[in-house]
Amino acid sequence: MTVSSLMALAALFLVLLWTQTSSGQPSNPCCSYPCQNRGVCVRFGLDQYECDCTRTGYYGVNCTNAEFWTRIHELLKPSPDTLHYILTNFKWLWNIINQTFIRDRLMRLVLTARANLIPSPPTYNSAYGYINWESYSNVTYYTRLLPPVPEDCPTPLGTKGKVKLPDSKYIVEKFLLRKKFIPDPQGTNLMFAFFAQHFTHQFFKTHNRMGLGFTKALGHGVDAGHIYGDNLDRQLNLRLLKDGKMKYQLVNGDMYPPTMAEALVNMSYPPHVPLKNQLAIGQEVYGLLPGLVMYATIWLREHNRLCDILKAEHPTWSDEQLFQTTRLIIIGQTIKIVIEDYVQHLSGYYLKLKFAPELLFDVQFQYRNRIAVEFNQLYHWHPLMPDSFIIDKDEYSYKDFLFNTSMIINYGVETLVEAFSKQIAGRIGGGHNINPHMLKVAAGVIEESRKLRLQPFNEYRKRFHLKPYKTFLELVGGDEEFAKELEELYGDIDALEFYPGLMLEAPRPGAIFGESMVEMGAPFSLKGLLGNPICSPEYWKPSTFGGKTGFDIVNTASLKNLVCLNTKRCPYVNFHVPVVSSEDDRSIKKPSAEL
Amino acid sequence: MTVSSLMALAALFLVLLWTQTSSGQPSNPCCSYPCQNRGVCVRFGLDQYECDCTRTGYYGVNCTNAEFWTRIHELLKPSPDTLHYILTNFKWLWNIINQTFIRDRLMRLVLTARANLIPSPPTYNSAYGYINWESYSNVTYYTRLLPPVPEDCPTPLGTKGKVKLPDSKYIVEKFLLRKKFIPDPQGTNLMFAFFAQHFTHQFFKTHNRMGLGFTKALGHGVDAGHIYGDNLDRQLNLRLLKDGKMKYQLVNGDMYPPTMAEALVNMSYPPHVPLKNQLAIGQEVYGLLPGLVMYATIWLREHNRLCDILKAEHPTWSDEQLFQTTRLIIIGQTIKIVIEDYVQHLSGYYLKLKFAPELLFDVQFQYRNRIAVEFNQLYHWHPLMPDSFIIDKDEYSYKDFLFNTSMIINYGVETLVEAFSKQIAGRIGGGHNINPHMLKVAAGVIEESRKLRLQPFNEYRKRFHLKPYKTFLELVGGDEEFAKELEELYGDIDALEFYPGLMLEAPRPGAIFGESMVEMGAPFSLKGLLGNPICSPEYWKPSTFGGKTGFDIVNTASLKNLVCLNTKRCPYVNFHVPVVSSEDDRSIKKPSAEL
Repeated sequence: MTVSSLMALAALFLVLLWTQTSSGQPSNPCCSYPCQNRGVCVRFGLDQYECDCTRTGYYGVNCTNAEFWTRIHELLKPSPDTLHYILTNFKWLWNIINQTFIRDRLMRLVLTARANLIPSPPTYNSAYGYINWESYSNVTYYTRLLPPVPEDCPTPLGTKGKVKLPDSKYIVEKFLLRKKFIPDPQGTNLMFAFFAQHFTHQFFKTHNRMGLGFTKALGHGVDAGHIYGDNLDRQLNLRLLKDGKMKYQLVNGDMYPPTMAEALVNMSYPPHVPLKNQLAIGQEVYGLLPGLVMYATIWLREHNRLCDILKAEHPTWSDEQLFQTTRLIIIGQTIKIVIEDYVQHLSGYYLKLKFAPELLFDVQFQYRNRIAVEFNQLYHWHPLMPDSFIIDKDEYSYKDFLFNTSMIINYGVETLVEAFSKQIAGRIGGGHNINPHMLKVAAGVIEESRKLRLQPFNEYRKRFHLKPYKTFLELVGGDEEFAKELEELYGDIDALEFYPGLMLEAPRPGAIFGESMVEMGAPFSLKGLLGNPICSPEYWKPSTFGGKTGFDIVNTASLKNLVCLNTKRCPYVNFHVPVVSSEDDRSIKKPSAEL
Repeated sequence: MTVSSLMALAALFLVLLWTQTSSGQPSNPCCSYPCQNRGVCVRFGLDQYECDCTRTGYYGVNCTNAEFWTRIHELLKPSPDTLHYILTNFKWLWNIINQTFIRDRLMRLVLTARANLIPSPPTYNSAYGYINWESYSNVTYYTRLLPPVPEDCPTPLGTKGKVKLPDSKYIVEKFLLRKKFIPDPQGTNLMFAFFAQHFTHQFFKTHNRMGLGFTKALGHGVDAGHIYGDNLDRQLNLRLLKDGKMKYQLVNGDMYPPTMAEALVNMSYPPHVPLKNQLAIGQEVYGLLPGLVMYATIWLREHNRLCDILKAEHPTWSDEQLFQTTRLIIIGQTIKIVIEDYVQHLSGYYLKLKFAPELLFDVQFQYRNRIAVEFNQLYHWHPLMPDSFIIDKDEYSYKDFLFNTSMIINYGVETLVEAFSKQIAGRIGGGHNINPHMLKVAAGVIEESRKLRLQPFNEYRKRFHLKPYKTFLELVGGDEEFAKELEELYGDIDALEFYPGLMLEAPRPGAIFGESMVEMGAPFSLKGLLGNPICSPEYWKPSTFGGKTGFDIVNTASLKNLVCLNTKRCPYVNFHVPVVSSEDDRSIKKPSAEL
């Protein structure tokens, strides 16, 4: 036996000794996340593990050795920050590129690079940290990207950090509470904020009564369940069952969602809302905010408008066929608007984004999606909300705004659209920007992540090909006091939790949030949008949408069309506040390429 | 106006006149299936239609004009009969090819060519003849490949044939009833027949109480629901909830399914079966036949055997993880055996088939499946069943065989395996080979297809790139009397129904059935097998199966291993009857390349 092998043996004994100290029993070796680069940790024997490095591009005990092509790829791949810089600068260059075939190539690259980070078919869920048939087939679970922290670990986040996590209430009050409203430097407005909320709550519908990590939105994506209800019963109650249309009420000739008396579906209204003001909407919680009711009204009008168009071309079609085909058009419009208006604005890219399912027809891509708890966690963008709401020179406090369902009828869609489009939203990243009314929500997110046993922020950084932060100082971008306070609370950067990490990471210059939110959010988002079945070669054709007319409507959808084809007057409508500049009246500090 | 345009106009008037004659109202122009080559028919106005030819490779009003590359492809593509001839002859050549990389290439070609015929995500169902969100998301429906015959057509099958279909009872008695047992020329045995039944009834579980075209098997494929139950409740009742195992009983040291007293799950037993003989099995109808109980016993033993193997390597794993991981191994073994033993035998190919999910990793392939009503219809292979069952020199009539659950315990697995492996099954195709006991089932299939409004056999021929038959004589392969009788019943070859077409088509020389059964069955089958999530790049790795040991078990699975690793004595076990020949003791009249 050589000296080195003796030393290795001694080291092994020490490791074994160490893993056994804490509880007598050997602890789970997967607690320290030994497998790198998406390798899968499997526990063997009592205290051994193996990393499955299959198709990771790496090999070795911990999947740390790059294969030849992986190494080449790593060498050539620019950093996310570099790419972001290129995509958000050189406007003149992008103006040219956007006119050429390179736009399509880049768009495909964006879609595949992002979507490839999301496993499909889905893998784990909150009950299962390993692949199995139950978590595959039981769609009442959200999925998750990384398995839960094993139950038998030395610390709540594995092996790093303190044995007891800091109080969530303390964290949000200390780091997330707004002192003074910080406006978003990208010019994001409330029209965007309410769209975000309206759009995402078709697939974020946590069903805590079922247990942890369950959802009521079984469509797991853009199924327009927020318009039609998340089950068939609700849908049938909301439908007029004539000409494909949804029930509605007319006030002064304008169409609004029906009252509960007209469509008896379960809605969450507090007792103080008068019955006649309780509107029936696909999503049961959308009475909460006039911004959500506004979008519900707009989509309702759009649905019924499309039914008329389809019926004119297809007079023999049944109510059912008119309804179902309209629903697919609505789903298509939604995806188009989200990519070309919403994500376009959010990204700040000068590359003109494009919704074109054909781009993926010749690559390996799965047309399915499963919403992940991490995506839900990540999308708690409450800093967007202002301290009060300005409508047509009136200012509304939260108290007067919440559950104010008569507002949509009193002001009309046009006035609300214009007001929300002109009022700036708060910056999401960087901390210290959540209105006190929503602080409890943020604390709830952290509490939930603990019950779900979410892995540390840095493990998610690695999962998305980002370098783990080495220090809190690096995370917060140089603010030493901030970093010191975080360090004291968490003890170790590798024990920082997921949501605080996302929210406290320093935003990119002039941007709404930091690198992690983009690099983790975009894959979930784009996979969900393009993974919709209507984007598959089987579905993506005119006949699916009733013919050329419907297909054209999908392909020309925009936020502006959505609003202005359903209002008498076309108001200022946009996902950013208006900014007058000498060069381009649509440009703001960091203008989006197209809106 | 030119003469030709005047004539065209006149023709148009005639067409309009004709479509209006039958009922006063214009009839649905899609009734005549005008769109060819997978074009989608959409009704416009009152009496117009449009064909959506998107990505069919054809263009024109009825998608009848081939694009350039389609034409080239059509010119070069050999006919199915030619391919079949090549694959089932030239044994010496195949013996060489099977040793080279060409085997992989051909296997990939087989898989993609077959699977590409199945739409994925799925399209229609029995309630919807057009693409929509409900039929996509509601998995309680079987899907279907072709939309139902529209409701408002001149004849039951569209526009062709008689207004009243022939009596189904008359059809089966006239054409399908066995006069004298016709043995399968491929040497298929009862071991195969019971495997077919056992395997397929995990995903064929029609739920008629729900309405037409519904299924109880929501996994839509190989989910081993026939072993574990089709819902979580049933699974938990069947599980021991210790070491991952399923409940069992021991008789003379041999493992059998538990009695109902030990696992209280719903089973379909007639009252005459004594309670102590009522075995509890994943699939509720498997008490019906000793062959099914035998397979249930074998898989039960295999499950529990695998649990022991996994537990030895992973002593810290919970019951749940042992169970779930074993289930994935069982699913993997099933697919391996179905492709390399079952389909290999059925095909008669000398090409050695290979279960290797990697073959599809670089092509566009959807890892999902939805069982189609047409697949269910097609798989009614009752001619396989003999007139009596010979076990160890005893002969059992149907009366003595059905629900005889004590047989498995009295004879033991070894004896049944050997008996079933040695008894030849009946030929499926060509007619006149269904035992009277099962004639009602065949009539039921035809009745069901009428309620489901299945399109004509020839429309399915076209859907699978086969030439529609021009005459009944062509279909039955020259038997003039046979053809004349069919013609009298149906009136038109284009009005022949799906199931009778499949069963009455002349078998290929020396084969178990004709071209259509192979060309329509194989795509459904292979898509279902390879579309399983375990075949996806996300799942197909050792860790999914608990590590190298489990992965190796999947990759070395065979019918023989399955039986002989779970019995004391290794009996003769095969999917064909033993035939002694001078050259190769495994070869039979049309030998399979490998078993």
